Amino acid sequence: MTMEAPAALLPAPFTVSMMKSPGQTRNARSRSRCIVGLRPATRASALPDLGADPIDHLLALDPGGRGIGRFFQPGGARRAADTLRRARRVLVTTGFVVDSGAAETDGPPGAAVLGRALRALGAEVRYVTDAVTAPVLSAALTALGEAADVIAWPDGDDAARRLLASERPTHLVAIERPGRARDGTYRNMRGADVSEWNAGIDELFVRAGRVTTVGVGDGGNEIGMGNVRARLAKGGGLAARIASVVSVDHLVVAGVSNWGAYGIVAHLGRLAGRPLLHTPDDERRLVTACVAAGACDGVTRRREPTVDGLALDTHAALVTLLGVAAKARA
Amino acid sequence: MTMEAPAALLPAPFTVSMMKSPGQTRNARSRSRCIVGLRPATRASALPDLGADPIDHLLALDPGGRGIGRFFQPGGARRAADTLRRARRVLVTTGFVVDSGAAETDGPPGAAVLGRALRALGAEVRYVTDAVTAPVLSAALTALGEAADVIAWPDGDDAARRLLASERPTHLVAIERPGRARDGTYRNMRGADVSEWNAGIDELFVRAGRVTTVGVGDGGNEIGMGNVRARLAKGGGLAARIASVVSVDHLVVAGVSNWGAYGIVAHLGRLAGRPLLHTPDDERRLVTACVAAGACDGVTRRREPTVDGLALDTHAALVTLLGVAAKARA
Repeated sequence: MTMEAPAALLPAPFTVSMMKSPGQTRNARSRSRCIVGLRPATRASALPDLGADPIDHLLALDPGGRGIGRFFQPGGARRAADTLRRARRVLVTTGFVVDSGAAETDGPPGAAVLGRALRALGAEVRYVTDAVTAPVLSAALTALGEAADVIAWPDGDDAARRLLASERPTHLVAIERPGRARDGTYRNMRGADVSEWNAGIDELFVRAGRVTTVGVGDGGNEIGMGNVRARLAKGGGLAARIASVVSVDHLVVAGVSNWGAYGIVAHLGRLAGRPLLHTPDDERRLVTACVAAGACDGVTRRREPTVDGLALDTHAALVTLLGVAAKARA
Repeated sequence: MTMEAPAALLPAPFTVSMMKSPGQTRNARSRSRCIVGLRPATRASALPDLGADPIDHLLALDPGGRGIGRFFQPGGARRAADTLRRARRVLVTTGFVVDSGAAETDGPPGAAVLGRALRALGAEVRYVTDAVTAPVLSAALTALGEAADVIAWPDGDDAARRLLASERPTHLVAIERPGRARDGTYRNMRGADVSEWNAGIDELFVRAGRVTTVGVGDGGNEIGMGNVRARLAKGGGLAARIASVVSVDHLVVAGVSNWGAYGIVAHLGRLAGRPLLHTPDDERRLVTACVAAGACDGVTRRREPTVDGLALDTHAALVTLLGVAAKARA
């Protein structure tokens, strides 16, 4: 490509993209050749402009191979950003406690990055999670230089009602937080009941009333997946058994839940016209801090700085490209 | 996400993804809430599985905002890899000389990375370009530890015929190489005539006969864009004026041409079951070596280690994610 650089284009941002089903295969053995001035007929039909949002392109990458294509939400991150942009009081929850009793590394980094961005836009942001995840989330916030304003989920059956009354959030956000399945239990991706390890924080979303709710997930068993449960449950089996019934106003799906939260922040930055996303170096520090505070990888179950079995380099690369995408002309 | 790690999944590769047009907006002000066991109706219809190839997702990112969605080729990189996988003698050309007389940084790195992969798979690979790009391409090859087997485009009207006769390639590959427009000139993205600076190497493709041809481009004015010229020319104007009429058997479109070449290599690695892609550090060394040998950024026209106005970090990040995608279960 060779062109003059319009000043507004530097650094050149991601702006337009598309994706289309394969099938428009040009005949591989075609021998028709171009003769200048006599071009061959184009055999491929016009391509529809599918998925014009480069942020969605990145969120739709599916490193875990969970088939998120079945329930991916085009435009979901943008819609979440639209509503969160002017939020006044946001209560953020995260934390998926694996059955070994350790919090996983997916979730707290996303919560911290999104919370920081919302604070930068003027919102009051507090966090709520249970005892196992609290130190991990606090470590993530501290790594970003944010106050660790983490509320421990209170005991008692009416915890959700009391918390909603005392915090009076305008928005509730859940990032990689268990949502109850149809049988009322929390299930991990293998179908194991992890209710013992995870407090009933999804009750906040069930009782949200007029509070706007946002959910981010990657597996189907998180708060928010009630929106797509019909699709998840269609084939029956494990997916149907673990699928959460807890719905939200705005569902964001990504290959890794942290990425979904980062995608919302990329959109917030685009809307606000200033950088709100963290840096690739921040990403490394965030995940490392979570592990130091006791978190483990949700896939490998190892206490090492990876997320969903993917090396730090992969997450840092995703953050780099999201940062470029965030500068795109909307 | 919380699941047990199947051994084959680590490091978890990109496997499935999709993309769809926005429009399935759930009512933002919806107040319907989930009651456990009584899930709300899902308003979004089933999503078609569009673009299941994560490599395509990455190639379709469009940092220059050139609207490559209009002519992106889903499956193009895979089809190119399918034919190149068993190539015997490959002649690779690259090099877009901007009108200042310097070669741009997009092209030679892609040519070197693809050429190295093809050699690793057993092909004989030679390169041909003109005098301005030759030292840049040689520097890229040397940076990868490859022999700089670069043929200088010979003088004379029958250069293409003679080269095809002497090299007897089974495959011709062009990466970011000017292809003539309908009026027979080479045009840059502004529409300026750059024929003076770029040799008529596209004649190889016009005369290819039974040789299989592959073209990689990002702007519409490169060898291979004859395949999609009808689409490019539809709106008239600049796009129609610069669009190349030179077609190929397999066209690969990407946001940056280097990325298209890397996408082919990612597919070759997937097909061969072994890593063939370069590393993010290689990427940095490649571009830096090109600039040291006289190349400039095709967008900024500055002699600095950027490609199409994008910082090295962006290209390194793309290579990181392509490396993960290359490990995907096909």
